[in-house]
Amino acid sequence: MNYPRRAWYVASWSQDLEPGKPAAVSILDESIVLWRAEDRIVAFADRCVHRLAPLSLGRCEGSRLRCGYHGILYDMEGRVVQIPGQPEVPPGARVQRYAVVEKHSWIWVWMGDLSLADETLIPPAVGFDDPDWILGRGYLDYAAEARLIHDNLLDFSHLSYVHADSFGAGPSFAEERPRLTALPRGVRFERWITGTRGPPARKSDDLVDGWSTYDFLLPGVLLMWSGSFPAGTAKSCDFEKPDHDRAIGGVTFTSQAVTPTGARAARYFFSWGPHRDHGDAALRDVLMGIAAKAFNEDKTIIEAQQRILDLTPDPRIMPTVHDRGVTLFSNLAARLVREESAAGEPFLHRGVLS
Amino acid sequence: MNYPRRAWYVASWSQDLEPGKPAAVSILDESIVLWRAEDRIVAFADRCVHRLAPLSLGRCEGSRLRCGYHGILYDMEGRVVQIPGQPEVPPGARVQRYAVVEKHSWIWVWMGDLSLADETLIPPAVGFDDPDWILGRGYLDYAAEARLIHDNLLDFSHLSYVHADSFGAGPSFAEERPRLTALPRGVRFERWITGTRGPPARKSDDLVDGWSTYDFLLPGVLLMWSGSFPAGTAKSCDFEKPDHDRAIGGVTFTSQAVTPTGARAARYFFSWGPHRDHGDAALRDVLMGIAAKAFNEDKTIIEAQQRILDLTPDPRIMPTVHDRGVTLFSNLAARLVREESAAGEPFLHRGVLS
Amino acid sequence: MNYPRRAWYVASWSQDLEPGKPAAVSILDESIVLWRAEDRIVAFADRCVHRLAPLSLGRCEGSRLRCGYHGILYDMEGRVVQIPGQPEVPPGARVQRYAVVEKHSWIWVWMGDLSLADETLIPPAVGFDDPDWILGRGYLDYAAEARLIHDNLLDFSHLSYVHADSFGAGPSFAEERPRLTALPRGVRFERWITGTRGPPARKSDDLVDGWSTYDFLLPGVLLMWSGSFPAGTAKSCDFEKPDHDRAIGGVTFTSQAVTPTGARAARYFFSWGPHRDHGDAALRDVLMGIAAKAFNEDKTIIEAQQRILDLTPDPRIMPTVHDRGVTLFSNLAARLVREESAAGEPFLHRGVLS
Repeated sequence: MNYPRRAWYVASWSQDLEPGKPAAVSILDESIVLWRAEDRIVAFADRCVHRLAPLSLGRCEGSRLRCGYHGILYDMEGRVVQIPGQPEVPPGARVQRYAVVEKHSWIWVWMGDLSLADETLIPPAVGFDDPDWILGRGYLDYAAEARLIHDNLLDFSHLSYVHADSFGAGPSFAEERPRLTALPRGVRFERWITGTRGPPARKSDDLVDGWSTYDFLLPGVLLMWSGSFPAGTAKSCDFEKPDHDRAIGGVTFTSQAVTPTGARAARYFFSWGPHRDHGDAALRDVLMGIAAKAFNEDKTIIEAQQRILDLTPDPRIMPTVHDRGVTLFSNLAARLVREESAAGEPFLHRGVLS
Repeated sequence: MNYPRRAWYVASWSQDLEPGKPAAVSILDESIVLWRAEDRIVAFADRCVHRLAPLSLGRCEGSRLRCGYHGILYDMEGRVVQIPGQPEVPPGARVQRYAVVEKHSWIWVWMGDLSLADETLIPPAVGFDDPDWILGRGYLDYAAEARLIHDNLLDFSHLSYVHADSFGAGPSFAEERPRLTALPRGVRFERWITGTRGPPARKSDDLVDGWSTYDFLLPGVLLMWSGSFPAGTAKSCDFEKPDHDRAIGGVTFTSQAVTPTGARAARYFFSWGPHRDHGDAALRDVLMGIAAKAFNEDKTIIEAQQRILDLTPDPRIMPTVHDRGVTLFSNLAARLVREESAAGEPFLHRGVLS
Repeated sequence: MNYPRRAWYVASWSQDLEPGKPAAVSILDESIVLWRAEDRIVAFADRCVHRLAPLSLGRCEGSRLRCGYHGILYDMEGRVVQIPGQPEVPPGARVQRYAVVEKHSWIWVWMGDLSLADETLIPPAVGFDDPDWILGRGYLDYAAEARLIHDNLLDFSHLSYVHADSFGAGPSFAEERPRLTALPRGVRFERWITGTRGPPARKSDDLVDGWSTYDFLLPGVLLMWSGSFPAGTAKSCDFEKPDHDRAIGGVTFTSQAVTPTGARAARYFFSWGPHRDHGDAALRDVLMGIAAKAFNEDKTIIEAQQRILDLTPDPRIMPTVHDRGVTLFSNLAARLVREESAAGEPFLHRGVLS
């Protein structure tokens, strides 16, 4: 799998990790248990050092986690601190710990060397703690590799075909190309659609200029702002970025994250909703209904694409002009993987004993 | 898989391919899309040359097929004729095309070198366009390799055990052997059963001589004529083929085709029904009810046989006298495969770009 | 798989093998058909020598078994005695036969060299023919290797964590260790729990001393006697085995057998119930309800453990003091497998023709 380890992967929505209940997640085919200790979230390899039972079937005891099979007890650092019936704990007995941060309503896990975990690399998603946005959320499990979802999100020309009904995307997504800018850890997309009334479900009375911009960031996070401006704004801005505060409608934000859970499996997290100056909970619910339809359209074609790929020896592609974002991002990811590999990052499961 | 490529495989019932709706099928583990252009049926590899999305999720546009992911457009030859948003199409961009013919209510696909496709090799099945026969039809998907279904159809001694209830086959199928004749592309079976009243569901009042004959033809097509004659006919014919026009009852025809869809998967197509001088739609429905029961009896034992084979290292068989047809046909198929291989027929998926 | 072949594996409850109906079972990944001939039970490899159809789809004809596909007939020794339509049977045509014994309400199959089958090695389970015990029975199919169930049954410290609710096991199972004794073909466990009222569902009014002892025997059979004695008995016995006839309550017996059906699959057979002097059918039903809950608790954690193991390259364990029984038994099994291998026992499927 060509995914960097020195990156923050979304493991869960914050809201889905209840206090006192360990949760099993999978990232890069590694089984991980998340649990809330008294003042923080902790992530371990989800296998007890004793006989490899999953710790996610255990129980939280304050700031400790106890295996549910034979009662081995761990502290927040992953150290074994008690073996029932055995006075001595072998020195060095510990389970692998991962760096983990709760931010923007997501629980992020760093899959690389623990000592290099760098919180400044967490993408600036919009969480439910942000008072400006009225968001809904969800996730979908894919029977497809994360990379294929990346490719989808890095080329919106598919909107004209896959989402003509759901998002009501017209032909311009396929006919015109957005402006692309390489970022240190991703790619920025910017697009004006001039003289539009917007998608059918949210038509405006007057013609407007629609602007949208998204960053697609390592390891697979999309952050998109959209809004409408008075007709003529695009031209008056010289088709550059407008002042977002001057939007007159349709202002929404969506955070999306693609987490490779296995070699042929991914979890796709998403939120979407209006700015509170441009909508309310009812609009959010309308948007989430549209998203539910559209994201299932993606899932249908991407899982089918995966099945074809799996049946194709030596698969080759024919890139088009719309693939530039895909190419930029995949080259960036591949470079990081090479650098990490050269720096000794192990592209394997780490042992259960340190 | 020991199946020849230079042969016509049944891909679908004609009736199941609707105009305007591409359909996905699988033959020899290759994913194929069938679609109706304005005046013909077209078959392509079911993967877009762009990013390998299945074209069967696309849409027909007259005599062109458009991929449903990013809108790549193909003509009937498989050539890319439009890439939305990109003025130029790379020369040579095309998807693999298969020779395809609609005949006898079946859609036949030639899996070998396109330039060698020879329509005269299509077996003379009886279709719904033939006014002489009143047919029903269906298909069953097997979790077993096609070869095991061939073996079943090439040795009717199993009728006495597997189908004693459904077809009401008596012991003579196991006790006596049909006359076998090697054909250039198959094996002919001929059998008299003298002094019978026929199967329980279709008993005749008088004793009759039953005659049936079928050809089992490459790549796996069974075509069978059955009928009853006055007692004594067998003897008066010297147990040779009678004049079919002199049959007095029970005249039916069945076309059956076994298509290897994958290494351990097959689709079994079948029709059956009376000659219009010897029955009607009501009898056809009775026959189809019997067939539904009988063909599920085959499926039960063949899928179980496959599971045993998969669990058996170095499986060996013990042929009996009834296996002569199996041996003739499998030797014929193996010889063709060797010849094709020597002639350079690729026993692999072909590339997506010519 | 590290399981000895020269051992008796439980293939079925006696009650589950009906006269006249062959039954398919799997032991060590070998497909076996069991059937009742007139005066005995017979076990064959479940594949006809002709074309490997499973004989379990055939029919019993007195003391013979007929394949349901083409009618090949076998005697009780596995010899082919009839091939319909063929006068001669090839000499030596026979299907592999297994030694099989019905005893203690279980059908035991010897997986090693037939000539070495030794009935004295059948573990002394308690069957439904024993008038002293009022038993219930059942089985569970595991998606896990048998070895993990062995490990579970060889270390009851898990009772304090996995079965705290179901069996109402207190902390002493994890805090204290039973006495272990190596047996020629297994391990004996003995444990006093003093000054207890027993588990919540079956509390006694007075404090008692609880005694339980079980043998865990090759190839994976647990036989356990439990009972309560007057407080002080443990001490007066010097914590040795008490006189079972002096038990005052809670006397139960359970026979359990773990059969490896495949590489990652096992069937777990169990009975449990009170001695007739200490309970009745109603108590048996209470116990079976508790067992159903408890054995599913085991299944949940063991199948999860298997999934983790399968995802872990180079899995390593950290043994604890409670693992001594696991180690003794697995060393014993490994030694037997080595000896059998040196003696030429084939750790492969045997051929279908002798």
